[in-house]
Amino acid sequence: MAHLISTSCSLKISSSRKACFQRLNNPSKAYQTSFTPLTSNQPFKGVVLRGDKPHRKFVVNATTTPLSQKTPAQPTSFSHQNSDESSKPQRVMVIGGDGYCGWATALHLSNKGYDVAIVDSLVRRLFDHQLGLDSLTPIASIHNRIRRWKSLTGKSIDLYIGDICDFEFLSETFKSFEPDAVVHFGEQRSAPYSMIDRSRAVFTQQNNVIGTLNVLFAIKEFREDCHLVKLGTMGEYGTPNIDIEEGYITITHNGRTDTLPYPKQASSFYHLSKVHDSNNIAFTCKAWGIRATDLNQGVVYGMKTDETEIHEELFNRFDYDGVFGTALNRFCVQAAVGHPLTVYGKGGQTRGYLDIRDTVQCVELAIANPGQRGEFRVFNQFTEQFSVNELATLVTKAGEKLGLNVEKISVPNPRVEAEEHYYNAKHTKLIELGLKPHLLSDSLLDSLLNFAVEFKDRVDTKQIMPSVSWRKIGVKPKTVTA
Amino acid sequence: MAHLISTSCSLKISSSRKACFQRLNNPSKAYQTSFTPLTSNQPFKGVVLRGDKPHRKFVVNATTTPLSQKTPAQPTSFSHQNSDESSKPQRVMVIGGDGYCGWATALHLSNKGYDVAIVDSLVRRLFDHQLGLDSLTPIASIHNRIRRWKSLTGKSIDLYIGDICDFEFLSETFKSFEPDAVVHFGEQRSAPYSMIDRSRAVFTQQNNVIGTLNVLFAIKEFREDCHLVKLGTMGEYGTPNIDIEEGYITITHNGRTDTLPYPKQASSFYHLSKVHDSNNIAFTCKAWGIRATDLNQGVVYGMKTDETEIHEELFNRFDYDGVFGTALNRFCVQAAVGHPLTVYGKGGQTRGYLDIRDTVQCVELAIANPGQRGEFRVFNQFTEQFSVNELATLVTKAGEKLGLNVEKISVPNPRVEAEEHYYNAKHTKLIELGLKPHLLSDSLLDSLLNFAVEFKDRVDTKQIMPSVSWRKIGVKPKTVTA
Repeated sequence: MAHLISTSCSLKISSSRKACFQRLNNPSKAYQTSFTPLTSNQPFKGVVLRGDKPHRKFVVNATTTPLSQKTPAQPTSFSHQNSDESSKPQRVMVIGGDGYCGWATALHLSNKGYDVAIVDSLVRRLFDHQLGLDSLTPIASIHNRIRRWKSLTGKSIDLYIGDICDFEFLSETFKSFEPDAVVHFGEQRSAPYSMIDRSRAVFTQQNNVIGTLNVLFAIKEFREDCHLVKLGTMGEYGTPNIDIEEGYITITHNGRTDTLPYPKQASSFYHLSKVHDSNNIAFTCKAWGIRATDLNQGVVYGMKTDETEIHEELFNRFDYDGVFGTALNRFCVQAAVGHPLTVYGKGGQTRGYLDIRDTVQCVELAIANPGQRGEFRVFNQFTEQFSVNELATLVTKAGEKLGLNVEKISVPNPRVEAEEHYYNAKHTKLIELGLKPHLLSDSLLDSLLNFAVEFKDRVDTKQIMPSVSWRKIGVKPKTVTA
Repeated sequence: MAHLISTSCSLKISSSRKACFQRLNNPSKAYQTSFTPLTSNQPFKGVVLRGDKPHRKFVVNATTTPLSQKTPAQPTSFSHQNSDESSKPQRVMVIGGDGYCGWATALHLSNKGYDVAIVDSLVRRLFDHQLGLDSLTPIASIHNRIRRWKSLTGKSIDLYIGDICDFEFLSETFKSFEPDAVVHFGEQRSAPYSMIDRSRAVFTQQNNVIGTLNVLFAIKEFREDCHLVKLGTMGEYGTPNIDIEEGYITITHNGRTDTLPYPKQASSFYHLSKVHDSNNIAFTCKAWGIRATDLNQGVVYGMKTDETEIHEELFNRFDYDGVFGTALNRFCVQAAVGHPLTVYGKGGQTRGYLDIRDTVQCVELAIANPGQRGEFRVFNQFTEQFSVNELATLVTKAGEKLGLNVEKISVPNPRVEAEEHYYNAKHTKLIELGLKPHLLSDSLLDSLLNFAVEFKDRVDTKQIMPSVSWRKIGVKPKTVTA
């Protein structure tokens, strides 16, 4: 895999490697651009992007890139369930904060008054370069994103660029930022990517499993009260012929009863890496008293959150390709450019889905309501179930309203999965914590489709069809021809 | 981890590394030593240790060390259940064949007429050097072991020295040896080792998971009919309050029924690595049609097998230390040297146990009776259950018969585990295939104790007490002081 990624994303044991380090040029340069304050009670506070943190142990060394002057955490209007507001977690590290869910979450938490640090190796951007892919939306550099956010809202976000598989780097981020909660999106998150070739399969499991192990060790060593909010996936469960519970199931067998981890049946090396993570985390909760919440997320759709839509430099990425694009987002882009909706096989594959505005809401709910030390909570994070055929029908109807001629075609399923199956997954725990779902509505679909139409000139139709086969994966490195 | 192991045991992605290679000097030298033929129908055939393999594609390159002249596979007297003898697997690769179970298995299979290749990085020997440990028994080098076996029986065992995490190396072993079955013992196999420090925890999961992934890819790419016989552990299941089944459990839930993977609750980074392996293997059986048998082995005890006992250069290793020693073997050594038997905590920890003579028997049964393509079989490989207290009592009684004064003490449990619990694990599938168990008897205990007494001058009492704490594991590399 060394040929695939830069030194910044080390595949090797941290003790033998140095993280790549970057520093911003002119960190104190004030931006002159106009801006719109996000809310009236959050005035522009000037743009000093970097400075000292008084009263805090603050280790800056060559492996970290702090980028902020600390602003005092501002309690928000969010209805936290903790009665003692002073005990609320204030400092949140978002690992993978430059990605699709991570960026939206980092901004949301910053907007809600948390002190936020983004930790990211930026390797997701490298994957696009290597595979010849690109986000539908043009996305600004992480540095410009954070500067723009600061200029618009006065809120700082710390930035640490490096690889959490490098424990030396990760240690410095913990010692420097001292998080109360860590939201861990920092994994290779595409099932097709993990099935491209042997190197990517190995990279996915190594990167995800070792990165998470390092986070667990960092919490144990440096911040034992820190709450780990880990992104898992509903795909860990597979498609059993019984109801899917949230993490655990009570089994009566031969006259005895126990509540055990729900059996997992993952169906790609990526999904498996999340199962491995879950098992590792559960063990450390028991052995070390880690407090952790595993958010088994469904398929995320949508582009805009309250924060990302306020300026084009804050726009989120939007993937529609066969490797990183997910079902509904991809269908919308296909409809926008007149490409048939590509249904894999029979299209009866049913999964849980959620709006990205609910992703950020769920993560904040988890952070605001941490479990006890030693507790391993599992929440199923989605709001509705759809089959692929149902999604295709919804997009077809929404497209017709906009005058688009939407067709669907069945393509040979590149995956190994049941195409018709029972599926009933529970998802009540986040609702109980206060989640107010944004359900998939006609108006949301209209807006998604309009959005896709707006950017349709950026669509590369060569990226749309599935290019990765679960059965044909081989040992030779696969490259994309020009 | 780079500071812990040699280049031979690469922790890094194979494509960027070269395996260490060793060649035997004077490979064709004939030994003049006397020998005892193992059985009367297996006369001494001369000792030509290396030569060409006619009629086979045989790739020798710098990463492999073939060490044999092929002898035709000899059908044995073992009652294979396959009706068609000609379809029996003949060529068996034993990964980790220099270890405790691996060495005994390699000899057993060779003796039974299989063509055997040992693949091993020899890193287990390095662990002893680094931790200041040593086998109770003096063990010969792998080269001398194999030469001695050849000189005594006329049977060749191929040897490939290298790291299966290096896919380039592993590929060459597959292309060169063309196995019909792979027995995979080649993992870091100690729970305490995996809990020494962060580096060893990461090493254990990386080494075990990536090594097994590579084996799966090698089978898919080069030998798709090859049967993978993978050593798992009963420790994957933990100690649920319901009966433990063999790999799968049928669950009726809310009126629906499915048979699902048995829920796992592993309790060390080592045990977790085996759970990760099992999940990865199950997926590849489904997606690629791999045929695999997961042998969830209990705690192995005993020293001698029919093959290892015939010459001191064939002796197996025997670990009694706090890191690699397992319960019953350790107790016997403690009794032999007058050290109290160290019971962890309350001593109610109950596990499955088996004699090493049954390990080799079980592996052969699995090989001789492969499943279908795509089938993922799970066998629980043990013969009897004991609690730690029960074992201590048995050893105490056996010691008294030999005039030993055996005491037991409770030491603070270094692990995080239930010390009193329900335990009832099924283990019928190997019996159904023909396993004839060697149950723990007075005579076996006598012989084990006598054996420990014979070597008691080699015991280093500093190695006996537990030195690794599940709760105190830290991020700094732990070294052993002189």
